[in-house]
Amino acid sequence: MLFAEPVSRLIEELNKLPGVGPKTAQRLAYHLVKASKDDVEALARALVDVKSKIRYCSICGNLTDVDPCAICSSGSRDRSLLCVVEQPRDLIAMERTNMFKGIYHVLHGVISPINGVGPDDLRVNGLLDRLKEGEVKEVVLALNPNVEGEATSIYLTRTIKPVGVRVTRIAYGIPVGGDLEYADDITLSRAFEGRREM
Amino acid sequence: MLFAEPVSRLIEELNKLPGVGPKTAQRLAYHLVKASKDDVEALARALVDVKSKIRYCSICGNLTDVDPCAICSSGSRDRSLLCVVEQPRDLIAMERTNMFKGIYHVLHGVISPINGVGPDDLRVNGLLDRLKEGEVKEVVLALNPNVEGEATSIYLTRTIKPVGVRVTRIAYGIPVGGDLEYADDITLSRAFEGRREM
Repeated sequence: MLFAEPVSRLIEELNKLPGVGPKTAQRLAYHLVKASKDDVEALARALVDVKSKIRYCSICGNLTDVDPCAICSSGSRDRSLLCVVEQPRDLIAMERTNMFKGIYHVLHGVISPINGVGPDDLRVNGLLDRLKEGEVKEVVLALNPNVEGEATSIYLTRTIKPVGVRVTRIAYGIPVGGDLEYADDITLSRAFEGRREM
Repeated sequence: MLFAEPVSRLIEELNKLPGVGPKTAQRLAYHLVKASKDDVEALARALVDVKSKIRYCSICGNLTDVDPCAICSSGSRDRSLLCVVEQPRDLIAMERTNMFKGIYHVLHGVISPINGVGPDDLRVNGLLDRLKEGEVKEVVLALNPNVEGEATSIYLTRTIKPVGVRVTRIAYGIPVGGDLEYADDITLSRAFEGRREM
């Protein structure tokens, strides 16, 4: 019997987090045992709130606490320019550049036969419905520059072009094989500027 | 406005944890948004429980949900052998060796003039009171092998010897300058076996 039950349960729960091994979980647990009650309860509350208040925007698929999300309901965004990203974190990376003033569509994945993910598993139909409304003039694909991202970009291009919307993709300013989420803002801005016709 | 408020608040709270920077906090938050409601609530509950149920054992100072702790109230521990450690995590490291069958005293710190920690800030008086009861025949010092740990070991030896109790310390099998918490079990076991008279 090494730990008191509440401590070992906390270690166990922390250990489930990505990148948190048993040693780190133990460290964090000790920190939390010593931390102020207010701080720990604030964290617990933030956890509960994020599950009860956060959902996906019914229009773009971004994480939001209001539906439609702040970007979809904003009056100051360019509704003729739509950027397609894989995950909400990629949307955040784009927003951080302060370059892009259009709207978004989050696929929540990419086509990946190995993982059994096909076009029907992504939010592609919702995207086509939005495009058919006619307001969007250009779709900018900002998927990760890897095999799945490429395959998905090609699939989307083939699917979107018949609707009569211009399709571009962000330039290979972002390092090939890298993760969009970790690109620095300048590289990502350049990539956006250098987007090319598909 | 990058994140919905509940998400940015969770990122902020996670960012307060030791070793969790903004990028890691963001990663963890995304993971938690996607994780099952049950898992996230289990983590939140574990956090609240650890603050409401865990206290320090009034005898040895270990973390516990019952007072006295399971080790202090156990009938199968050798009450003539008492091991002094700096932190509850060091007690766990000792327990993990399965070598030590005695009881513990957790100082919750070491003498450190630089940090303004003197003997009165540690649980030394409680230790002396326990020793005066006469049941303990040997005190094994298992403090970290650094300057503060050494100074504290010397101070404790001088304070305990007049009470008439044997004082030993674990051998330098543990790497000098290292952290007791990270010693592997075998090294720590050897160090315990090779303890020497002070």
